[in-house]
Amino acid sequence: MKEFLLLTPGPTSVPARVLEKTALPMIHHRTKEFQGILERVNANLQKIFLTRHPVMTFAASGTGAMEASITNLFSKGDTALSFSAGKWGERYRDIARAYGLDVKSFEKTYGEAFTPREIEAGLKQHPGARAVIVTLCETSTAVLHPVEAIAKVTQKHGALLLVDAISGLGCDPLKMDEWGVDVVVAGSQKGLMLPPGLAFVALNERASAKITASNLPKYYFNFTETLKMMKKNDTPFTPAVSLIRGLDEALVMLLEEGIEKVWRRHAETAAWVKSKVASLGLKLFSKAPTNALTAIEMPNPIDSGAVIKVMRDEHRVVMADGQGELKGRIVRFAHMGAACTPADARRGFEAFTDAMAKAGFKIEAAV
Amino acid sequence: MKEFLLLTPGPTSVPARVLEKTALPMIHHRTKEFQGILERVNANLQKIFLTRHPVMTFAASGTGAMEASITNLFSKGDTALSFSAGKWGERYRDIARAYGLDVKSFEKTYGEAFTPREIEAGLKQHPGARAVIVTLCETSTAVLHPVEAIAKVTQKHGALLLVDAISGLGCDPLKMDEWGVDVVVAGSQKGLMLPPGLAFVALNERASAKITASNLPKYYFNFTETLKMMKKNDTPFTPAVSLIRGLDEALVMLLEEGIEKVWRRHAETAAWVKSKVASLGLKLFSKAPTNALTAIEMPNPIDSGAVIKVMRDEHRVVMADGQGELKGRIVRFAHMGAACTPADARRGFEAFTDAMAKAGFKIEAAV
Repeated sequence: MKEFLLLTPGPTSVPARVLEKTALPMIHHRTKEFQGILERVNANLQKIFLTRHPVMTFAASGTGAMEASITNLFSKGDTALSFSAGKWGERYRDIARAYGLDVKSFEKTYGEAFTPREIEAGLKQHPGARAVIVTLCETSTAVLHPVEAIAKVTQKHGALLLVDAISGLGCDPLKMDEWGVDVVVAGSQKGLMLPPGLAFVALNERASAKITASNLPKYYFNFTETLKMMKKNDTPFTPAVSLIRGLDEALVMLLEEGIEKVWRRHAETAAWVKSKVASLGLKLFSKAPTNALTAIEMPNPIDSGAVIKVMRDEHRVVMADGQGELKGRIVRFAHMGAACTPADARRGFEAFTDAMAKAGFKIEAAV
Repeated sequence: MKEFLLLTPGPTSVPARVLEKTALPMIHHRTKEFQGILERVNANLQKIFLTRHPVMTFAASGTGAMEASITNLFSKGDTALSFSAGKWGERYRDIARAYGLDVKSFEKTYGEAFTPREIEAGLKQHPGARAVIVTLCETSTAVLHPVEAIAKVTQKHGALLLVDAISGLGCDPLKMDEWGVDVVVAGSQKGLMLPPGLAFVALNERASAKITASNLPKYYFNFTETLKMMKKNDTPFTPAVSLIRGLDEALVMLLEEGIEKVWRRHAETAAWVKSKVASLGLKLFSKAPTNALTAIEMPNPIDSGAVIKVMRDEHRVVMADGQGELKGRIVRFAHMGAACTPADARRGFEAFTDAMAKAGFKIEAAV
């Protein structure tokens, strides 16, 4: 029987090379051997985030890193502008609210992206804003935000720009330092080709300068302690040793290929999937598509759940349904991380075409 | 070359059966397959914690679970009595302080344990106390607390008993429901024989009843959401899939052996190590020893760092130094989890004896 092909927008397929490293016999974290791994991992993370600033690694899901960026850089009552275009933008907003920030919530119709002009309008409306929160790739709608242009705008207005790049990092271009992004949050189980369980936060000097003024309570996610320990290639709490050894290998793989080439592979695969979807006469849900996944709108009366079930049961290809109000309405076909190859995209598209036909959709031409 | 033998008090050695499961090809977490794993894991965790109450699993280090138990069950200003006998008790106390609890700190000389009478005296002194925080096995000093008797005392006074069982669970006896422990916090990388990266919190009804009244901010560690999702064999955030598959296997292994037998194996191994240490004329540091590890006091002028280095370099046996002010003064010889076997203890003791001799300690008899 064929192996399952995981084309979900996280967790993504983990390469055998990486899985092997995660399964090496356990080592203690306060040893020269592990310090060497941490030193290399920390240096290589910078090459993927394209920053000369520290990239902190936490044992947590991506949500933990979002929380860390709020609790370590802000205080109760600070004004934060949340620009959310889907479920993940909403999550970041909800975290800021949970910690008592004064959140001004801007929301887009699902499928659309904010323009830099809209973000500037928000900043002009709230001149005291300390934070602008955006999502690089909004996985729930397959929308990509123009982070480079957004960074130009936020810099002018003196707010910190926090970018949720959990699913975008390693898929869509992101140049932290060159673009002037202040805070980048990421997770392990997307473009980094790892199992879930690690979360990352990178901070530039503008962001680091805010740490001491923050009065929100925190302990497990503590930037001061983490940055201090990183200088000694150490961590404040027991790190997720096996996942970090996997990370070490995954970063080497990404750097062997080169980050620009990794992005190009995602761009080319995304373009191919989109063109094939268009050739079936189907519509993309996203008006500003990411390279990490393609969200395909289901024509009436086809239910995406049924299509996904046929793909899974008959083709062993796993894609994701829409979330929340989009459930049943879109198929999310991910081409992310290690499963972003022409062969995987082709297998995914063949499964999709067959499942659509079985759901009653008339396949027009030879595909 | 021999494999390293990890006799550190966490991370502990991970059995090959468990490592293999962590390295299986990635699966998506919102699938029937993973729900089946979560259902079994949640049921089996209850058999190890000896509770009929839910045991929550978080992607985090043990410190994250400590924090969760504070932020979800208490409010700012609540009085908490911290009974700390070492570094880990101090950590739990510091977390409660970081979140604004009114912490009354009781501290023991390192190497000693609190008696139930001392804890009762604390409760009488602070009749409004909402929490009593103790450590089952204080790994920094190898001290075991009499949790069964402590639970009797706290129940009489109406405070919740929070037990840090991060390194004790699966090594020292702990019967959550029978003893009436309200909150048990644990981690993956000790008696549970897993890599670090998972943390656990179990709550009885007395503890669960406090969740709604808590006004501390939280998001990533949220008991309400976690308990709600557990009912559907789901998690609020992406779980650490590979570690949970390893956990599934580790729990099966523990249940195959039987938790009472697992405790007995630890008790017997601990007794053997202690008797051998005594036969060398050396002293135990702990006045109330745990079965999870043995802390061996170094006679003047021997530095534990030098002994540990010889064990590591010449015998490939890894033990831990003391922490903080105990650095250089004790060797921590762990017999915890999968590395708690007669053969491992023997190899550890032989390495230790040789390293002590090389450090200038006169080995008296044939050992």
